[in-house]
Amino acid sequence: MHYDVEWRRRRQGLAGPAGREDLAGVSESTKRLAVVGISGSPSRTSKSRVLVEYALAQLAARGATTQLVDLAALPAEPLLGRGPSAAVAQAIEATTRAGIIVAGTPVYRATYSGLLKVFFDLLPQDSLIGRIGVPLVTGHGAAHSLSVDHGMRPLFASLGATVVAGGVYATSQQFADGKPGVELLAAVDRAVGEALALATAGLPGPIPRRD
Amino acid sequence: MHYDVEWRRRRQGLAGPAGREDLAGVSESTKRLAVVGISGSPSRTSKSRVLVEYALAQLAARGATTQLVDLAALPAEPLLGRGPSAAVAQAIEATTRAGIIVAGTPVYRATYSGLLKVFFDLLPQDSLIGRIGVPLVTGHGAAHSLSVDHGMRPLFASLGATVVAGGVYATSQQFADGKPGVELLAAVDRAVGEALALATAGLPGPIPRRD
Amino acid sequence: MHYDVEWRRRRQGLAGPAGREDLAGVSESTKRLAVVGISGSPSRTSKSRVLVEYALAQLAARGATTQLVDLAALPAEPLLGRGPSAAVAQAIEATTRAGIIVAGTPVYRATYSGLLKVFFDLLPQDSLIGRIGVPLVTGHGAAHSLSVDHGMRPLFASLGATVVAGGVYATSQQFADGKPGVELLAAVDRAVGEALALATAGLPGPIPRRD
Amino acid sequence: MHYDVEWRRRRQGLAGPAGREDLAGVSESTKRLAVVGISGSPSRTSKSRVLVEYALAQLAARGATTQLVDLAALPAEPLLGRGPSAAVAQAIEATTRAGIIVAGTPVYRATYSGLLKVFFDLLPQDSLIGRIGVPLVTGHGAAHSLSVDHGMRPLFASLGATVVAGGVYATSQQFADGKPGVELLAAVDRAVGEALALATAGLPGPIPRRD
Repeated sequence: MHYDVEWRRRRQGLAGPAGREDLAGVSESTKRLAVVGISGSPSRTSKSRVLVEYALAQLAARGATTQLVDLAALPAEPLLGRGPSAAVAQAIEATTRAGIIVAGTPVYRATYSGLLKVFFDLLPQDSLIGRIGVPLVTGHGAAHSLSVDHGMRPLFASLGATVVAGGVYATSQQFADGKPGVELLAAVDRAVGEALALATAGLPGPIPRRD
Repeated sequence: MHYDVEWRRRRQGLAGPAGREDLAGVSESTKRLAVVGISGSPSRTSKSRVLVEYALAQLAARGATTQLVDLAALPAEPLLGRGPSAAVAQAIEATTRAGIIVAGTPVYRATYSGLLKVFFDLLPQDSLIGRIGVPLVTGHGAAHSLSVDHGMRPLFASLGATVVAGGVYATSQQFADGKPGVELLAAVDRAVGEALALATAGLPGPIPRRD
Repeated sequence: MHYDVEWRRRRQGLAGPAGREDLAGVSESTKRLAVVGISGSPSRTSKSRVLVEYALAQLAARGATTQLVDLAALPAEPLLGRGPSAAVAQAIEATTRAGIIVAGTPVYRATYSGLLKVFFDLLPQDSLIGRIGVPLVTGHGAAHSLSVDHGMRPLFASLGATVVAGGVYATSQQFADGKPGVELLAAVDRAVGEALALATAGLPGPIPRRD
Repeated sequence: MHYDVEWRRRRQGLAGPAGREDLAGVSESTKRLAVVGISGSPSRTSKSRVLVEYALAQLAARGATTQLVDLAALPAEPLLGRGPSAAVAQAIEATTRAGIIVAGTPVYRATYSGLLKVFFDLLPQDSLIGRIGVPLVTGHGAAHSLSVDHGMRPLFASLGATVVAGGVYATSQQFADGKPGVELLAAVDRAVGEALALATAGLPGPIPRRD
């Protein structure tokens, strides 16, 4: 059965019993899981993007279908809502259809980047209900680690997403030659594991609108 | 090692070993699910407490074991960390053993009550990892509804809990004669449904400490 | 050295040297006070922009030099940091030289717009130390009024600005035919009054960097 | 003229011209300035309390009348709103009459202590309008430094206070043998200087209530 249809069926009755095959194991159920990784760094060689790519690779290895949305590569005018763009429309479509959204961002002004925010501003209201958000934030030092809790959590929550408890905050010291260290990778692994567990939990979907 | 098994192994000692029957269905698995409801209102006749009690009743009807921790009824000195108390110790124990923690609070100073905060201050570090948090907040008008996202979410996250996307914010207008209206009850139902789905998702437990 | 003189010495190079006549009275000292109003709405006919323009008019009437930076009218590529632009550079220059920065934004995703954030991301670190920030936020209903406190205050603070206590949150109901009502204007008047009082308080400037 | 009366007179007309003698110098005008320092640590030997006491000493040296409110020494029952207490009532009275409120707290659950919060919950609505708040927060490492911006700033703002831009966050590493290091003291000095400048700025007072 198509993933999206299955999702909706399960949403009925809020937390109704999921089908047998769904519970046979995570690797089984995630085979058709769609995951989008959003890189919110203006830089093409950003640390947060490296973490997003690593998370996507881990999720692909577990059977998920993954796609990277690199906001730095999308055209500026439509990102700011000034006219249409097929590429931006596709990125929005992919994000709102994904079961897991991994969002990477550097810390600017003690919170997520403006680039990430303009993209989230384009997503339709309630469009992440029933989806799982994974924040991956990078900063120079430890001082801005609460940006995960006061920036990324409310941002995901504003669209209805469930956010993994183990959102990741990484400092520059946790990278060597642009590569994340072992402990940092373990933190991302853990966030990915949480996301997989939550994505297969049969979360209720959006509240039906009255017409 | 298989992914799912590895998670469960790590979870041992926190939420107890999950078994086969754990996956047979929500109603089955929640039979042994422990739920604690915390009333963070100084008032014994508070609106937020009514919501907590309603949520507990819904969870009990689904088979969960429930307990209400009424902070207004606990002794003041030990709540402020000034000496021991069997009652407070039991409340802490129950909270850190529960799979779902429902926390109710009125809005004071645009966020959760100080009474709720002193209790959370007593909980051991990381003690809510793998647990599900359900915020139920009541305020006079709509102006403080973001207290769910900027107060309760970070508070639960600071102890490692996963928070339901649908945290509830209720205004006084949604109560009549001290009783919550239909829409408000539906919002709590929904949060309870989310919590049940998440609680049976097989979330990873605390990261093992190195010795 | 006398306390007051020491402050002024440190402030030199930021808000310019204050002179004796600076203390003769608010109306006098604000004659040379520079104010920038930033409109963070993507829409040219936005409610928040109307409030920013009103605030600028009030400050101009008190003798301040005012300038409106309409982010909707600035080119997209340089706003996202993709190459230089004389217009964006001038907007940055004006903002970092102003004594008062009035920032207007609609609520998107329960906080300030991404458009406003990309512009703040371009401002140099510590560039608003000693300056006064005035948040003017508009939302449909009252539910997001805490975006002033959890969005705008930390954003201004991240650059070192002092924020008026009376940041304004306006709902659509406070406008009729696109025009702000009397109570809303009074709230802006009040914020403007606070900003003027603070701007002439002789705040310390940036901490001198060690070389 | 009595300080409180002078304050109210100045508030009239929002930012009306202050009297000549008021501008003769900060040391002059602060002679009658009342300052309250609140220690929000449950521990009598806390680092944050040391910083509060230092700030009070600096302000006393500039001519202010200072008082320490040590919440750890106040009775628990009335702090939780369970019955009256002359000591707590006096602490509330002193706080709401002060021109500057210095609030010290350790970081618990990534934000201010519950002890500090229960005291702020007791303060009357709008009771800090026109007053200056100075946050002094201590944590083990740097990770929670944004608790100043997401915890203390909104807390002060909820009562109407203007908060110094330079709120202080101190780590354990900045103390040696319980004594704050030179750089940390300089940060407190700076916050104190800001508070003095703001306290003499002639901020508007509370909006008159309609009867």
